[in-house]
Amino acid sequence: MRIGGVLNLLGKLLIILSLMLLSPIPFSLYFQDGMTGTFLLCSLLGLFAGGLLLFIFLPDQDLGYKDGFAIVTSSWIGLALLGALPYLLSGAIPSFVDAFFESMSGFTTTGSTILSDIEILPKSLLFWRAMTHWLGGMGIIVLTLAILPLLGIGGMQLFQAEVPGPTKDRLAPRIQDTARILWSVYLLMTLMETGLLMAGGVDFFNAITHSFATLATGGFSNFNSSLGHYQSTYLQSVVILFMFLAGANFSLHFMALRGSISAYWKNEEFRFYGAIVLFATLAIVIANAVAGIYTDTGRNLRDVLFQVVSIMTTTGFGTADFDTWPPFCRVLLVALMFVGGCAGSTGGGIKVVRFLLFFKYARLQLHKLVHPRQVETIKLGKTKVPQDVMIAILSFFAIYLAVFLVASLIVTALGVDIITGPTAVIATLNNIGPGLHLVGPTQNFGHLPALAKLVLVFCMLAGRLELYTVAILFTPGYWRMTRKPMLRWNKKTKKSINE
Amino acid sequence: MRIGGVLNLLGKLLIILSLMLLSPIPFSLYFQDGMTGTFLLCSLLGLFAGGLLLFIFLPDQDLGYKDGFAIVTSSWIGLALLGALPYLLSGAIPSFVDAFFESMSGFTTTGSTILSDIEILPKSLLFWRAMTHWLGGMGIIVLTLAILPLLGIGGMQLFQAEVPGPTKDRLAPRIQDTARILWSVYLLMTLMETGLLMAGGVDFFNAITHSFATLATGGFSNFNSSLGHYQSTYLQSVVILFMFLAGANFSLHFMALRGSISAYWKNEEFRFYGAIVLFATLAIVIANAVAGIYTDTGRNLRDVLFQVVSIMTTTGFGTADFDTWPPFCRVLLVALMFVGGCAGSTGGGIKVVRFLLFFKYARLQLHKLVHPRQVETIKLGKTKVPQDVMIAILSFFAIYLAVFLVASLIVTALGVDIITGPTAVIATLNNIGPGLHLVGPTQNFGHLPALAKLVLVFCMLAGRLELYTVAILFTPGYWRMTRKPMLRWNKKTKKSINE
Repeated sequence: MRIGGVLNLLGKLLIILSLMLLSPIPFSLYFQDGMTGTFLLCSLLGLFAGGLLLFIFLPDQDLGYKDGFAIVTSSWIGLALLGALPYLLSGAIPSFVDAFFESMSGFTTTGSTILSDIEILPKSLLFWRAMTHWLGGMGIIVLTLAILPLLGIGGMQLFQAEVPGPTKDRLAPRIQDTARILWSVYLLMTLMETGLLMAGGVDFFNAITHSFATLATGGFSNFNSSLGHYQSTYLQSVVILFMFLAGANFSLHFMALRGSISAYWKNEEFRFYGAIVLFATLAIVIANAVAGIYTDTGRNLRDVLFQVVSIMTTTGFGTADFDTWPPFCRVLLVALMFVGGCAGSTGGGIKVVRFLLFFKYARLQLHKLVHPRQVETIKLGKTKVPQDVMIAILSFFAIYLAVFLVASLIVTALGVDIITGPTAVIATLNNIGPGLHLVGPTQNFGHLPALAKLVLVFCMLAGRLELYTVAILFTPGYWRMTRKPMLRWNKKTKKSINE
Repeated sequence: MRIGGVLNLLGKLLIILSLMLLSPIPFSLYFQDGMTGTFLLCSLLGLFAGGLLLFIFLPDQDLGYKDGFAIVTSSWIGLALLGALPYLLSGAIPSFVDAFFESMSGFTTTGSTILSDIEILPKSLLFWRAMTHWLGGMGIIVLTLAILPLLGIGGMQLFQAEVPGPTKDRLAPRIQDTARILWSVYLLMTLMETGLLMAGGVDFFNAITHSFATLATGGFSNFNSSLGHYQSTYLQSVVILFMFLAGANFSLHFMALRGSISAYWKNEEFRFYGAIVLFATLAIVIANAVAGIYTDTGRNLRDVLFQVVSIMTTTGFGTADFDTWPPFCRVLLVALMFVGGCAGSTGGGIKVVRFLLFFKYARLQLHKLVHPRQVETIKLGKTKVPQDVMIAILSFFAIYLAVFLVASLIVTALGVDIITGPTAVIATLNNIGPGLHLVGPTQNFGHLPALAKLVLVFCMLAGRLELYTVAILFTPGYWRMTRKPMLRWNKKTKKSINE
């Protein structure tokens, strides 16, 4: 690995994040919460660390395929470390492990928290907390739609090809151009949600922070009662809409904004995603009505739709305590936790498209038993799914299962109980936020042993980076690998990236 | 489908079972439990039903590939219906659904029971209960090693090829010969266990019935406290040994009995199976010791080994209440529930070989990311696994997941709670026996709604018949399928079966 080049790039990212660390300062000054100095100090420390890396390590024009994996994983860890500083230095979260947990939960758009009382935090720190979500969401969109396809991770090359884009039936074929387009969409949608929330009476501070958490499908709220704080049907509807959009492929939004609204309907994953939300909502509404949980059908529909979309997109906002709903509803909600958002969204989980292909293959197998000599292929939309991509997707389930099992065993071995431990792993591995029992929606992760928190931090990271990106670093072969120049970061050779 | 030929074959099977219905009579006479008349009546009713089918429907020499699926599923349902008669007619289980549940639980070697007090049953009825296990186990061995490979179900063709057999490196290449060989092994092992248990002081009746339940990995015991009734290390060791053997491929036992003891070690699935048992046992013993659950290491080892082997082989016998063990131990035991026995054993679950290949493929995917241009294949032992077989195995997980989810949703929709419902589905789909909470080891399935019991009966059947066999009957294509003569049951063309 060209470690110098990787660290030089990390230095650049740290400097960008250091500049972002100045963004809470206007809020600090406005609310007079005394955090201005802390953020200035954090920013300076970040500039110093980033500058040191840039000073020691020269930029490397020949970063290759192999380095891509190290860049992605080390970036997330480096940014989470720097992002933890404001929690630590302000004294709001005095333990390093806790601050790192909260920061990683932000950057991976997970939304699990170790804080028991959120509302006592300084406003500017709450802004920073939401900002980590928003930046993490930005990173994820570019990662899944522009970088992972180049690395050939877990069938991700497929998801890009499926979405026809602006230039030559593809999204702009260069990482930086793709990033710029997607970020504009992301920024525009954030501003739209902020405006709509403010139109409903929410102040600017709470409107923008909750928009950050929504678009990133993160789930950090400024209120202990999460989105239950806003008992207005209008406001909850706005959040439902944007959670749903954030769980869809951002390429589709780009096309829609350019006028091709039909792009949504033409996309098979999006149709399946919508159908699941619709079916789950109707089934739970009926079950709740039969069980007499709600007498008001409108309220039933609103609460159920919110919970279904929040869980399925792995946002993790809450407006109702679904632990009081009938067992059938809870089984369905737990199943949705695993599905997650669409590929190319900010949502976590296994992803809708993987489940779609998983079941398409099962159906094909039954079909093959009936017609053994017929050669059939799986299609996603109009695209044929090559067998090796299919196998990469199926193997994803195996790695997922292995990580889930090992993490659950370690966490329970540390003394965590049998409901809390495995659901904490599910909540972090799928980047949802809250688990059940002692890490349930009304609880937090603060009381877990430090080592368990680090295991969960690993789960957030592995889940967020589509498992393969992190898992490959654990194979001996990776470290013996000879470099294959596939990714080129300098401008002259930019065009060669997609060849 | 040639429905006449299928029903004619079912008639033959019913007549065989009717003769087996006479087997409890000696016990009835010896224990004077007044069941002689009931079993005679059941046998006569079975002979009449079977005879009627034989009289109406002519044998069909041209039963084909398509008919194989219908034969397998209808046989298990038909035999379970006839096998339920003694429970019903004796009045021991007055409800039809309950009697059918108990009988299907026997024939699928599941071991779930609706009885709250087992010890009040007449001895001869207990013998019949154990007999349904034993016959079910016989059926399963032949099904998985001789019939399913011909139907090409879920990669099962692979498991036969993996085990070199007596003639031309294959097990005798005809269904009837294969059946005869495997049944001899099965019978011999049953007699061995019966002898060893009697040598430890168990009376003949309890020795043979528990041997039936062990070799079938069924789990029906004559005691409310299950195998905890025998607190002798010798007796429990005998049962552990035979549970372990029953969870291994019976072709291996055949080879071992002919002198090739090394066959076990040469078989990769068996090595993995042994390694899992060893690892799980050691980990749980240590965790129990650390938590201070056991002070006596010998007792700790014995109880843990028993529980690990009983759960992993899906037998479901119990000697200790593992609900008091640390969370880590319970997570590991629940994970073992899904693994199940080896292919070609009487054990249920997903099967060791499927997990082995699942993780081999995941490893291959990581390897491919490091060496994208290298063409690699998966091997099981020395056999290359073709890609279509591999995909069939991976798709098995998808069908498994779908059945689990739908069944859990139906059962919880009927009002069963969130722990009992899904674990009842797991316990029946994996053919284990007891679940958790209200269907836990010290509870039974009797209190569930009748419709939930029928769903669980379906789970037992689907799980036992490797899902595909049952699932295919739900595809519209199956019923439109043109016959392909692949299976021929008449003697003249017997040789063509394996070509």
